[in-house]
Amino acid sequence: MADSSSNPPPPQDQQVDAPAGPSKSELKKRAKQEEKERKAAEKAARQAELAQQQAAAEVDFASESYGALPLNQSQSRPGRTRDQISTFSGRAGETVLFRARVHTSRAQGNKMCFLNLRQRTESVQGLLIVTPEKVSKQMVKWTASIGAESIVLVEGVVEKVQELIKSASVSDVEVHINKVYLISGIEGRLPFSVDDANRPESDVQSADAQFNRVLLETRLNNRVIDLRTQTNQAIFKLQGAIGDLFRDYLSANGFLEIHSPKMQGAATESGASVFKVSYFKGSAFLAQSPQLAKQMAIAADFERVYEIGPVFRAEDSNTHRHLTEFMGLDLEMTIEEHYHEVMEMLDGLFLSIFRGLREKYKKEIEVIGKQFPAEEFKWREGPEGTLKLTFKDAVDLLVEDGVPREDLDDINTENEKRLGRIIKAKHDIDYYIIDKFPMALRPFYTMPDPEDPTLSNSYDFFMRGEEILSGAQRIHDPALLCEKMRSKGVDPDSMKPYVDAFRMGCAPHGGGGIGLERVLMLFLKLNNIRRASLFPRDPKRLEP
Amino acid sequence: MADSSSNPPPPQDQQVDAPAGPSKSELKKRAKQEEKERKAAEKAARQAELAQQQAAAEVDFASESYGALPLNQSQSRPGRTRDQISTFSGRAGETVLFRARVHTSRAQGNKMCFLNLRQRTESVQGLLIVTPEKVSKQMVKWTASIGAESIVLVEGVVEKVQELIKSASVSDVEVHINKVYLISGIEGRLPFSVDDANRPESDVQSADAQFNRVLLETRLNNRVIDLRTQTNQAIFKLQGAIGDLFRDYLSANGFLEIHSPKMQGAATESGASVFKVSYFKGSAFLAQSPQLAKQMAIAADFERVYEIGPVFRAEDSNTHRHLTEFMGLDLEMTIEEHYHEVMEMLDGLFLSIFRGLREKYKKEIEVIGKQFPAEEFKWREGPEGTLKLTFKDAVDLLVEDGVPREDLDDINTENEKRLGRIIKAKHDIDYYIIDKFPMALRPFYTMPDPEDPTLSNSYDFFMRGEEILSGAQRIHDPALLCEKMRSKGVDPDSMKPYVDAFRMGCAPHGGGGIGLERVLMLFLKLNNIRRASLFPRDPKRLEP
Repeated sequence: MADSSSNPPPPQDQQVDAPAGPSKSELKKRAKQEEKERKAAEKAARQAELAQQQAAAEVDFASESYGALPLNQSQSRPGRTRDQISTFSGRAGETVLFRARVHTSRAQGNKMCFLNLRQRTESVQGLLIVTPEKVSKQMVKWTASIGAESIVLVEGVVEKVQELIKSASVSDVEVHINKVYLISGIEGRLPFSVDDANRPESDVQSADAQFNRVLLETRLNNRVIDLRTQTNQAIFKLQGAIGDLFRDYLSANGFLEIHSPKMQGAATESGASVFKVSYFKGSAFLAQSPQLAKQMAIAADFERVYEIGPVFRAEDSNTHRHLTEFMGLDLEMTIEEHYHEVMEMLDGLFLSIFRGLREKYKKEIEVIGKQFPAEEFKWREGPEGTLKLTFKDAVDLLVEDGVPREDLDDINTENEKRLGRIIKAKHDIDYYIIDKFPMALRPFYTMPDPEDPTLSNSYDFFMRGEEILSGAQRIHDPALLCEKMRSKGVDPDSMKPYVDAFRMGCAPHGGGGIGLERVLMLFLKLNNIRRASLFPRDPKRLEP
Repeated sequence: MADSSSNPPPPQDQQVDAPAGPSKSELKKRAKQEEKERKAAEKAARQAELAQQQAAAEVDFASESYGALPLNQSQSRPGRTRDQISTFSGRAGETVLFRARVHTSRAQGNKMCFLNLRQRTESVQGLLIVTPEKVSKQMVKWTASIGAESIVLVEGVVEKVQELIKSASVSDVEVHINKVYLISGIEGRLPFSVDDANRPESDVQSADAQFNRVLLETRLNNRVIDLRTQTNQAIFKLQGAIGDLFRDYLSANGFLEIHSPKMQGAATESGASVFKVSYFKGSAFLAQSPQLAKQMAIAADFERVYEIGPVFRAEDSNTHRHLTEFMGLDLEMTIEEHYHEVMEMLDGLFLSIFRGLREKYKKEIEVIGKQFPAEEFKWREGPEGTLKLTFKDAVDLLVEDGVPREDLDDINTENEKRLGRIIKAKHDIDYYIIDKFPMALRPFYTMPDPEDPTLSNSYDFFMRGEEILSGAQRIHDPALLCEKMRSKGVDPDSMKPYVDAFRMGCAPHGGGGIGLERVLMLFLKLNNIRRASLFPRDPKRLEP
């Protein structure tokens, strides 16, 4: 540090004899003055130097390595590949580039910042440390200020860690960040944190709970945030998987996928209420199921068909298991001899779905089990096969268990669950079939039993004591069909195109309809069907 | 034949002298009388014998081998396997049992009957000949009387034929029928024959046409019969195949299938009209596309999603290519750098669909081509890849071709087709992409071009000069989104859950929506979209 800006102080021992020179005190005074000026000058110099240093420091050497990116309007395409966090474990030493949500950020002093970076169900720890010429204090400060749930683009080097990082799904490495940019920030406040939304109910209920409970209603109102939890990411991966397994099994068995219209000219299938649509100058009705269309497809010789599509029920039921719109997995097939051909096809389908989920989605089921603990779903394999009861057997079991027989003309929801518990206790299984329902309980198109006309060739399938499929052999004879329609108060002429299909010759056939969300809810024991629907619809909810 | 019943005639030369014996004339008279009686007795005997023979014949030795079966109510389950006609070619000498439609029946004399027996796209000739102790005349007579489109159960022996049978798809063998039973008959008259419905238009149009034309309207009114044609069986096999190919490609590329609600709280996406639904005490609206839901799924971190589901358009368009309800194949994905990542994904998807159809469904395409002759659908493979034009390039091509530039602010349907012809003539391809549409032509959620705000990061895909996909980069910034909503007259508050999704951080993304029926119609050149829909819906049709 050069002192060139100040004059050298006068020598203090300048005591030479000189005529009329300044007095000794005068000299002392002058010396003091000079000393004062020198110090002031020194101070000024030091301040100037500091200012210069500060000025130099403000030119942030890391300024290119962080900050908000301009809105991506596809300005350029350098073609750099993005990496997946799930691959980082084996890649220590490699430089990676990836887009992620900031799950959490935490500054440690002003030289270090930890980020938990998330991609769907995967997460990794990111570490930013002040490093000469690479990472500046400003960069750390800016990074620490990024709000949770912002989306960032990160470049860094994967490094092994000594101690496993419990807060991240990739726990044996972390990323030493070189560059971090904001792709999309948050406007306003998050209604709840993704961590809170992902917590098991038991954590929140415990006496010393320090966590926020996020009510289902709040989640559904802010479904986009709620869906970001690991649990929900896994739930909807399983929803997709059920659809895939359904299609794979049926394709392998010669079924064709069809798409039938949801808007219909007549309000059909008495019983469940229908939604009415304004259709130009008239009205249409939303299909309560693809029942009529898939039977017509059989009359049109398609032999084996399935459909995955929305079904609409205008029932004002506000329960844990009713939606006004849900996904129906429907199928219909010709039979050669006996309707048990269909029942067995459906049973094979369910076993294939259960096996597929257990074998291919073990990890997802575990993730979901953390938030929604459940006894593993059980079914019977092997030569014995699925448990099949008749409706009469089921009633007998309930009577044995203490339910008055006179209450059992139908088995209501409560008794269904009770039956599920009885069967669980007896056989340790969560999946079974009830066959041969009374005709009085089934729709007009159900084929009566050949021996006892009060019974029908129909069945329901159950998971954990709740119905997930209803099906039957259908009436393919137009005369018998019209008779049954009239007996249930339906005018055959009001459904003429449907009845006509059978007048033009139709093979014996049967089928069933599965509620996708119910299967998902019950397999995972989510306890509320809304959790199994991406954007659920019930009598009180039409948004988001 | 013994003559034991009559007395021997008296010797004619009995001319002995006897006292008071009968006179010669008397004797002659007696002999005549006896002769008369003898003949009468002989006649009676013959008649009695005949009656006895007839009585014996009326006990039909074949009565167990034919007739109407009782209505199948699953009375029994012998477990006999049914055979498929498609397998018969290699099975000469084998006994087969199969259910089939009677396509045609034709008696030849009273001892022989030919049946054309059909299973979906396959058919075989059945032959019934009077055979002692096996096939009776009564059996032949009954079989010849079975109406077309009845369903029968047939047992017979597969036999090689000398001359190929042109009228059957399995032409090198026929089935010698031993047993034939009616499973389901016809009530009333068929509106048209399946043969007439399967005929190419050219056959009907030729001057000496002896065939009945079946109008599209008549077909659709009786869709169940119409769908039984080989052509329609093949068309809907291809419809299913497009869905499978769509899913396979996207699954392989990390997409998740989602299901979004079709009933929405607000009438969204200004422009196309929406159907209104009575929803308990309020109203709902049918989704015109899964646009909002799939973008929210992106904001919810699902990264890559697709949906196959119905979309509803309340447009009073009665054209060859509009339906009020059709199947949308939709996808949405995050982008890292540039929206061409999505455009290329979509292009790869289409190429995969085209290749899959051509490779795996050659036979079906040929079957359909017989009724709807079409030049084979062509696209560009190899390093050059799909032809990509900008909107400006497209306009220039049309101007070059003589269209006044001032008519080309938008490219209307007519000019779209003209452009298709220009490109076909120039490049011999039926599939291409137009990129960079003017912002004014696109919905509010479309991302503007970074350089020229009058343009947008959007594209349409075309097949044979008709649009089959529309897509774009979307605006993921809430401020810009609200600005664009307002500029298009949409109040952001009316779509709050949607806008909120972007306020909570959202990655840059883009996608597109494909009309399934349009792809099917244009690939096969069916000329009317109703032919590509199982039970089509248009402003005038809600049934069947």
